[in-house]
Amino acid sequence: MKSLVGNYRGAIYPVNPNSKQAWGIDCWSSLTSITGVVDLAVIVVPASLVPETLHECGKKGVKGVVLITAGFREIEDELGGLLEDEIKKIAQLYDLPIIGPNTFGFVNRTAGVNASFTSEFSLIRKGGVSLISQSGGICHLCGFLAIEQGLGMSALMSLGNRCNFDFPEALTYFIDHDDATKVVALYIEGLDMPRHLIETAQSLRGKKPIVALKAGRSEKGDSASRFHTGSMAGNHQIWKGALKQAGILAVDTAEELIDTAKALDSCPLPAGPRIAILSGQAGPGMIAADTIDRAGLQLSNFTTETQEVINRLLPPIAIRTNPVDMGPAWYSPKDMLHILSATLDDDGTDGVIFLAMYASANLKLAEELLREFEESDTFPKPVMACFTAPPGVWDHAIQEIDGQKGMVVLPTPERAVKAMGNLWRMKTLLEGRVQSG
Amino acid sequence: MKSLVGNYRGAIYPVNPNSKQAWGIDCWSSLTSITGVVDLAVIVVPASLVPETLHECGKKGVKGVVLITAGFREIEDELGGLLEDEIKKIAQLYDLPIIGPNTFGFVNRTAGVNASFTSEFSLIRKGGVSLISQSGGICHLCGFLAIEQGLGMSALMSLGNRCNFDFPEALTYFIDHDDATKVVALYIEGLDMPRHLIETAQSLRGKKPIVALKAGRSEKGDSASRFHTGSMAGNHQIWKGALKQAGILAVDTAEELIDTAKALDSCPLPAGPRIAILSGQAGPGMIAADTIDRAGLQLSNFTTETQEVINRLLPPIAIRTNPVDMGPAWYSPKDMLHILSATLDDDGTDGVIFLAMYASANLKLAEELLREFEESDTFPKPVMACFTAPPGVWDHAIQEIDGQKGMVVLPTPERAVKAMGNLWRMKTLLEGRVQSG
Repeated sequence: MKSLVGNYRGAIYPVNPNSKQAWGIDCWSSLTSITGVVDLAVIVVPASLVPETLHECGKKGVKGVVLITAGFREIEDELGGLLEDEIKKIAQLYDLPIIGPNTFGFVNRTAGVNASFTSEFSLIRKGGVSLISQSGGICHLCGFLAIEQGLGMSALMSLGNRCNFDFPEALTYFIDHDDATKVVALYIEGLDMPRHLIETAQSLRGKKPIVALKAGRSEKGDSASRFHTGSMAGNHQIWKGALKQAGILAVDTAEELIDTAKALDSCPLPAGPRIAILSGQAGPGMIAADTIDRAGLQLSNFTTETQEVINRLLPPIAIRTNPVDMGPAWYSPKDMLHILSATLDDDGTDGVIFLAMYASANLKLAEELLREFEESDTFPKPVMACFTAPPGVWDHAIQEIDGQKGMVVLPTPERAVKAMGNLWRMKTLLEGRVQSG
Repeated sequence: MKSLVGNYRGAIYPVNPNSKQAWGIDCWSSLTSITGVVDLAVIVVPASLVPETLHECGKKGVKGVVLITAGFREIEDELGGLLEDEIKKIAQLYDLPIIGPNTFGFVNRTAGVNASFTSEFSLIRKGGVSLISQSGGICHLCGFLAIEQGLGMSALMSLGNRCNFDFPEALTYFIDHDDATKVVALYIEGLDMPRHLIETAQSLRGKKPIVALKAGRSEKGDSASRFHTGSMAGNHQIWKGALKQAGILAVDTAEELIDTAKALDSCPLPAGPRIAILSGQAGPGMIAADTIDRAGLQLSNFTTETQEVINRLLPPIAIRTNPVDMGPAWYSPKDMLHILSATLDDDGTDGVIFLAMYASANLKLAEELLREFEESDTFPKPVMACFTAPPGVWDHAIQEIDGQKGMVVLPTPERAVKAMGNLWRMKTLLEGRVQSG
């Protein structure tokens, strides 16, 4: 209730026979007594009362259910499994899609619905990433990281025990029926019918990018996931091949999932692996250059025209080949942006890593960049930026720039490179090219 | 001046013949006219005036110099190199140690000296990590990350062109003569005399942990670093072996440098690689378990006593072997802490990964943990924690807990595991054991 009230603009009908009001709204004694149309029912009654409540949902013509209640097949007691079989049958009877049971629910930022027990998810910036997760904990981890790192999301959903609404149904919805979703991020532990997910992804291939964190890579993680949602995780090598075949990009950590989804949401895919590194300071440019190989990328060679622009704007004391040390242009953010646009125009460059650490001499950089953005078109190539500054100095400008015009801001130079590498991996994956890793 | 005024408690003497006041303090017309004793001179005059200024420093009996001015051997014009030779001779004449030229300076949080052009470094939390960097840009990157991630630092120093104060001198100072420094972090690009650094580190081996980010791992990064400070980077494989031999732990990214230094500052080293994962939610525990192998660690097996404590506190619906899903103990942070202490007492466990994502049901966890801390001893084993929450919810308690009693808070489960792996790598390195990686 706390999550819905104040966020959701439609009608909310609390149902509780033992209470007059909930969060300032009059309660109804039963679902069937509600006079209006009910689109979604969020159920938090004890497990034993769930079958009866689902019957009421069916009779009322509810279009979908979020079943937060736990105590089904995930518990050791076999009665849990039997109860889950029962609700499956009821759901089938009324053709009622159920998210859960044993889920924290879902949040749709675009529609303004927070059908979860975590009201703070409404702090997530609105954007194009939808996360479908087998674990509520990972939704919370990624949701809070999203708030902190400015990831724009459309939806977060935890599937829980996946009664009749599983990865394939969720993927189909977000890819074919939800315009607000531009990128789908998955967290998968293990599935009873992995083939169903892979086939669905294959049939949707190329429509929207899908990036996945698959648990159970190590033997230990694998065996833990067998327990968690009562499903088989299976050999990770088989999973890896299957995900690739379905055009799903696999990543290794929660951080990488967030960074990659953010880049996919806001940037075009690079046409090739040739990357320019432009940095306000030599050192960060160097550590970015150092991770280029590992990310499957290469440093681009500038055309004569680009090199001439750079040479004109930077004195010979700076490193002017790739990576470019723009330090001497600190006093003129305009020059730094000029170098950026020359590099983006360069036919030999497929993407740009743009780095700047705050220093008193470049104080106005972020603001000036934002001002330029107001007049500029969207970049035709991806730009991964890292602007690091003390709290309060560049915050506002960075938040505004982040995710706009094909530029994404990430926390470190190495993470910017890794995200760029993943854009390129996605490009080759969707084109079905052979690529290692 | 802006960096010093208001932070430094000793006397500040601005010297400027053309100005009466600087930041509200009366200026002196020359260094030699100052009546008091001058410990440190921060020089920002144009390059051509530096020799003369250094002579004055020598005559005045100044104990050390920070030479921020650029325009020496790092520029293409050979006059820069000649000028640097000249200042080297002057420094030798007066036995005057010079940090720089071409540096942003240094910050000593313990002594309250910010001798840099970046006043915001004074926002860094005081702690035991000292960073010696060949690049000012990396000092800024790491310094701002330190503010954001609560890394406690004692000093940050950029060596610049390393006139006569280089890595060996800095290492000797921070390890043998600075009690506030507990851990030394290095950022190395390339050196004229790498052997000198390695020999110094070897002679100091075991006194304080040293962790290093070495640029130039890829061929491209290597050739870029040759230009930056006019020095040779050299083959990375040779460097890798040499660092290991000297007992220096090499890491791969700026993020890893920060995380590892933070863990080394606050935690004991683990006696072995056997790790327990305790998580408030199953999913995050699973992704942590998944990265255990890669970090060179293994999941510990609990003794019967530990398992009994866990079984008593958690119902059978939770995963109770390692990783432990403490979800059902949400309503009782005390039970979670009880499980933590039982695991720390377990002879078969060398360190603990402790994870919890905020949820309305565990709202009080961070505060309760903090309260327990007030009465508890320092943990005998390292604990890497990840507490993720929306802004403002757990912030205060997490900041207080972080770095106390042998528990460090890191941003994601995977980074917690990686830092733990690096503590174990450090342990084996210092014991001279053979370990891969």
